This record gives sequence, structure tokens and C-alpha cells, in this order.
Amino acid sequence: MKKLLIQLDSDDQASVFDQVVAYDAGVDHVISLSGVRREDVTPLVHGAMFTRGGDKLKNTAIFIGGSDVTRGEELLAETMHTFFGPVRVSVMHDSNGCNTTAAAMVKKIAGAVEVRGEKVAVLGGSGPVGARAAVLLAGEGAEVLLFSRQMERAEATCLRIAQVFDEVARPCAAPAGRELAAALSGVQVVVAAGKAGVQLLAREDWSRLAALAVMADVNAVPPAGIEGVEMMDDGKERDGKTCFGPIAIGNLKMRIHRRCIRELFSRNDLVLGVKEIYRLAGDVGAD
Amino acid sequence: MKKLLIQLDSDDQASVFDQVVAYDAGVDHVISLSGVRREDVTPLVHGAMFTRGGDKLKNTAIFIGGSDVTRGEELLAETMHTFFGPVRVSVMHDSNGCNTTAAAMVKKIAGAVEVRGEKVAVLGGSGPVGARAAVLLAGEGAEVLLFSRQMERAEATCLRIAQVFDEVARPCAAPAGRELAAALSGVQVVVAAGKAGVQLLAREDWSRLAALAVMADVNAVPPAGIEGVEMMDDGKERDGKTCFGPIAIGNLKMRIHRRCIRELFSRNDLVLGVKEIYRLAGDVGAD
Amino acid sequence: MKKLLIQLDSDDQASVFDQVVAYDAGVDHVISLSGVRREDVTPLVHGAMFTRGGDKLKNTAIFIGGSDVTRGEELLAETMHTFFGPVRVSVMHDSNGCNTTAAAMVKKIAGAVEVRGEKVAVLGGSGPVGARAAVLLAGEGAEVLLFSRQMERAEATCLRIAQVFDEVARPCAAPAGRELAAALSGVQVVVAAGKAGVQLLAREDWSRLAALAVMADVNAVPPAGIEGVEMMDDGKERDGKTCFGPIAIGNLKMRIHRRCIRELFSRNDLVLGVKEIYRLAGDVGAD
Repeated sequence: MKKLLIQLDSDDQASVFDQVVAYDAGVDHVISLSGVRREDVTPLVHGAMFTRGGDKLKNTAIFIGGSDVTRGEELLAETMHTFFGPVRVSVMHDSNGCNTTAAAMVKKIAGAVEVRGEKVAVLGGSGPVGARAAVLLAGEGAEVLLFSRQMERAEATCLRIAQVFDEVARPCAAPAGRELAAALSGVQVVVAAGKAGVQLLAREDWSRLAALAVMADVNAVPPAGIEGVEMMDDGKERDGKTCFGPIAIGNLKMRIHRRCIRELFSRNDLVLGVKEIYRLAGDVGAD
Repeated sequence: MKKLLIQLDSDDQASVFDQVVAYDAGVDHVISLSGVRREDVTPLVHGAMFTRGGDKLKNTAIFIGGSDVTRGEELLAETMHTFFGPVRVSVMHDSNGCNTTAAAMVKKIAGAVEVRGEKVAVLGGSGPVGARAAVLLAGEGAEVLLFSRQMERAEATCLRIAQVFDEVARPCAAPAGRELAAALSGVQVVVAAGKAGVQLLAREDWSRLAALAVMADVNAVPPAGIEGVEMMDDGKERDGKTCFGPIAIGNLKMRIHRRCIRELFSRNDLVLGVKEIYRLAGDVGAD
Repeated sequence: MKKLLIQLDSDDQASVFDQVVAYDAGVDHVISLSGVRREDVTPLVHGAMFTRGGDKLKNTAIFIGGSDVTRGEELLAETMHTFFGPVRVSVMHDSNGCNTTAAAMVKKIAGAVEVRGEKVAVLGGSGPVGARAAVLLAGEGAEVLLFSRQMERAEATCLRIAQVFDEVARPCAAPAGRELAAALSGVQVVVAAGKAGVQLLAREDWSRLAALAVMADVNAVPPAGIEGVEMMDDGKERDGKTCFGPIAIGNLKMRIHRRCIRELFSRNDLVLGVKEIYRLAGDVGAD
């Protein structure tokens, strides 16, 4: 029986990226829907629920994507609401790649250093990747400082992290320039997850942070989010800090993404959000 | 050569259900078009007509669907109008599953009782499934009473059945409650094809109908269209009446649907409407 | 690894024709996007660029189509602008079939007569197929007269041909009836590429043109663009002229189209516009 992945994408043009990855992960056909709104979800999900019975249900799965993470979360909630009892299919949510990217970044960090009980800082923490990185780092036992330029956004994000993901992050206003270095004093890890092409931390600032051991940056559009971290850095030492750049993180993200798609078809009741995706990242091979 | 099914769907989001069924029926690729309007049809159908010559044309087929049966009929008419001579592909029309559902329901009934010359009542007869069930029951030789709450709708539907399908059904206004039981006196079969979640006939009414032998209900959303008929009923006796519920009918509908999709690719000039679909329902296996 | 063709189509409903041809050319999956606007291109093309690394990139390609050639050219320009360095995939542009049709027509002509140094006339030369036929005929060394009813359109087209394709065509206003025959005096080849169902040249006019050796007409909707040229003509002699009609040209167009799609997957940096498509038309088999 063919493995069918139903792509519910909130953008006007469904992601080509997600479709290519799905095929590379062994999906037989992607059934792609663009511009999906909350009110479209029920009949589409019924089409997944009511076409294949019993044990065959695991050959159908749903992928929720699109560039808008909030809309993706609404589609996920509506999808879960449509299921009943055992009549359901597995679902993965990865709008804008936020979950797989955060999982890849934190995996790289956790492979380089033991974060339990240590202070870690997430710059650009109110964005989709930043917030999810904070969730995963907190889940690893780190003391997470979530930075945003606006304190209100940092606070709102930390509240949401507590309510939705049951993890603790401390909101911090990101001061400009030199003062940021002071705010980062004592952190072991710095993560940059801000907007593409915006530098968040200068080299002269991070190079003086004595406790700092690991830096990770997902910004692939120059200039780098952390000055001096290069695209291809994959554990490269720079001024005594272990660095991870966007391509190294992106490569792992791709493998995690494929791993998760394959997992979807192992049973009919999986819900792959950020934590489940991170868990699966643990057994990603080099495929 | 790959079997390609072109899905012309009148809804903004093309049916996932119809795509999954197509793949399960052995289609190699569904070429799915959403939000198809009458004026879109010609170039799309040309794409089916002019790409594969002669005997290879049978590897392309068209499926017309969507939740709006009237719009589907318009797309079908426009499709037929676009063909010329032998330059055509096979077509199936099943907006909202109306034809396959009606075929399944009538197949269940005809398997349980001989309707020729008998009175049968279709409740919710002006809806898409009801009207088509009436066509098929009339085709089996039954005397069909088509009930609708509004007499004008019943009359319009019966007129259309005569003009389009060349069958006879008698329009009846469906009275409320107890009076309906009187109107159903002498019928051998009652079919419920009304709106989801609306009860059309109470148990205390049908249980007293002496001539009544078979009841079929396609409403899958509680309460049942015919009180007392259960979802899973598949020939179950209740107060001496043989009952068919929506899941038993739906399971047969799925097999008929797949059977018809396979048939589309046997030649290039089939037009599968309700009668042809019913005919094919006769040799559905247990796949 | 599966061969994926990303269809960027400027129409509200992506071409079925182009999808069927793609499958018949061996593509594993078409990822179809309808109603693509210039501003949609970058993220879609990124999805092609960033999902498969290095040598595997050649398994993804882009097809730009739709009925509006100008919009297709914009999508092509935007696609090329999105690539950088070796991070690119092969692209084919064939909005409305203009490039493959022009290539097929000129291939037929060049197979029947040596045009180098000869005068050839393109009627309906400001349309998409006509302009491209002019480009290819000029490339074969012919002296091209490009006719349009409005001299300004002929001039604008010839200017564009010079700027974009680096070829020379002479703009000519197409006079009505008998005067057109005079304007065609001395031409060896006449090509009709006007609107469907519009006759551009009467038999009594062309039959008296002594130098005229070959005529080709792509209009498949009666009346023919060149009176007397039949649909199926494939080198048929009529009044001493060798004739090619729309079906013969169309059959070759299909083979060229499939040939080009296959070529796309041979490497990751092809850009198939009209000249490259014509070059590939040289080794089309009879598949």
C-alpha cells in the first residue's frame, strides 16, 4: 500500500522544500494542499481518516507546514480536534522548518558540551526557531535566558513556553552592543536564532566571555548572527569557542526531517512536535 | 505507460478522499486541480486529449468531484462538450460521493429484497444521494416515492430524474412526525438520504409499518436518519426489518469507487455516471 | 533518487498537458504550482536548490509554463536570479508550448529545404510561436521577414529578437488580401503562426508565388492559417509547395518536449530556451 503524505500548507504556494524532502524520505506520493485555512482542515483530514481502515491507516500521514508558524499551530490544533478514538493518522508539524532546525541546533550543542545546570542564552529567542531551541535546551536541564529586543516579546514567549511546552525560560531584554556582552556574562552557550542577515553579537564581545564554550548560529544570510561563525563551521574552534554554523546545522536538520517523515509511517497515532522531533534526532544516521 | 487520473474538483481544496482512493485503486499519479470552474475545463481536458495518441489514450482518465454536485455536473457537461470523435478519455463523476454512495445503498437493498413492482420511499430525496438512489431504484423496477419537506423541491427533482435519467419517481411532501408514517403505508423499502445529523423517521413510526421489509440510512452523524438503525448494521434484523447503516454502506461504496477507477483505464470512452457506476457495483469483490 | 520536476505555471490552473508529457518523459513526480507570480519564485526555487546536495541536484529540475509567455519569461528571469554559483538546477521554459512548437516547425522546414541565404516570411510573427520561429530561422541563416498586422508590433518584436536572442528579423506590416501576395514575392518559405482559427493567406495568393517552396502552419483550429494546408500534411506537395500542417508539427513538438524533459535531468545547470530546445530537436527519435 502506497505511503501517502498529506501536506497541509498555510502558504499560497505549498513548500517545494517539504515535498522534495518527503520524496527523499520514501513517501510514495505527496498530496499537496496550498493556502490551507483552519476551516478547510476537517474535510481534508476526514479524507485521511476514512479511506483506509485499521492497520492500513499508518500508510497515510499529515505534514503541516508553511512559513507562518502560528497558522501552522492552528492547523495542527484543528487536525487533532478532527480525530476521534483510534481513527487518526500520524501528524508532523514543522512550519518554516522551526522544529527540525531547533532540534538540529540543540543536538549539535548537546553533542559538544553538557548543558545540564549551565546557563545558556538564546538570542532572537522570540522567533520560531529560538523559542523552540529554548524549549529543548530547558528540556536538557539548562538554565535558559531567552533574549529579545523587546522585553514584552521575551516575556510572552516564556509564558507560552511554560504553558504549551511545560518548560522554563527566563525572559531578558537584549541590550544594544557592549551591554549585551555584560548580560551574557557566565553563559556557557550562545544560540543565535534571529532574523536572516542581522548580526546579533560582535566578535569582540563574545571573545571576552570566559565561560562561553559553544556558539551556534542558524542565520544563513550574511552577515552572520554571531560575527566570526562561518557557514560551514561544524565544531570548529574559534578563540577557544566551539562553533556551529548554519550549513552544518542545516545538514543535520535535513537528516532529522527525513527521519521524522519515515517515522510517521511506523504507526497511525504519532504527533511529532518539537520534543518528539528532538527525540528522533537521537538516532539519525548519515543518510 | 503510467495511469494518470486528472482530478477536476470544484472545491477550493481538492478532495483528499478522492485522491487516496485513486491511489488505492492503482492509479500511478493523480493530477489534481482545485477550484475548477466551468471556464477552466477546456484547456485542462485538451491536456488529456492531445498528449497520448490512439490506444494509449486509455491510460489517461478524468475524475470530477467536489462537494457541490451541481457544479460537478456542469464540469462534466463541459468536459463532454470538449471531446470530439474518438479523441476522448474516460470520465467518472462522483461529486460528494453521490453516485458511489447511492449505488452502494441500492446494491445493499437489492441484495436483501426484490423491489420490482414494489413501493419504495426515499426520504431526503431531493438531495444528491437521495435523487440518485431514486434513479437506481426506479431502474430496478420499483415504484419510487421521492419525499422532500418542500413539495416544490420534490417535484423539481422528479422532473430532473425524468429528463436526465429517464426514470420515474413520484414527488411527495414529507409531512412531520406521525403523518409521515401514514404516508409510508404500504412501502417495502425506506431509504434515508437526508442531511447529516437529522432524524427523518422515528422508531415508533417505522416499527408499525407492516409492509416494510428493508431500511437503509447513509447518515453517519448522530442522530441516525432512521432511529434505531445502527452505524454498523449490515443486514441486521430490527423489529423484523432488515437494516443497513452508513458504515456498511460506506464500506461497499469504497469498493465500488475503487472498482470504477480501475474500470476507467480499461478503455478511453467510458462515462461513469450513476447508472454505469451501479452496473459496475455488480462485480465488486472484497478487495 | 527520484526525478522531480517542479512546474511553475503562471495560470490559475497549472497545465495538465505539461504534466502528462513530463510523466511520459520519465519524471517520477511533478511538483505542480499554479498561479505562480514573480514574487512567489524565490522560496519555491530555494526548495529545489537546498534539498539535494552536489551531484544529486541534477535529479531536480524546473519547468516554467502557462499560457502567458511574458509572465513565463518573468518567472524564468526570477528563477535565474535566485540561483548562485553551482547551487542551481536545470530549467526549461516553454510557456504555451511556444519554444517546442517553434522548434518543431523550423525543424520540419529545415528538413525540407536549405534556408541559408533565402528569404522566409513569418506571418503572425509578433505572437509567441512566430517570434521564436523567426529567431530559429534567422539562426539557420535565413533572411527573415516578420509580419504583423500592426507595424509597431512587428518592430517591437524584431527589437526584442535582436536584444534577447541576438538575431535579425525585418519587421513588415501585413497588408490585407491581394497586397500580401505582393509582399511575399520572392520568399522561399512561409510560416503561419497567427491566432487559432484565423486564415492569414489564401490559396489563390500563395499558389502564384513562384519562389515559394515550403509552407508550415501551426493553427489547429479551422479555418487553416494557410488555406489548403491540411492538419495531417507532413511534407505533402500541394501546387508544387511542400506543406506541413499542425498535427505533423504537433507530433514532432511532443517528441521534442519529451526529449528536453529527459535532458533536464542529465545535469544541474541547463537552461533550455528556444535555441537550446531547437538544438536538442536534432536528436529526437521516434519514441
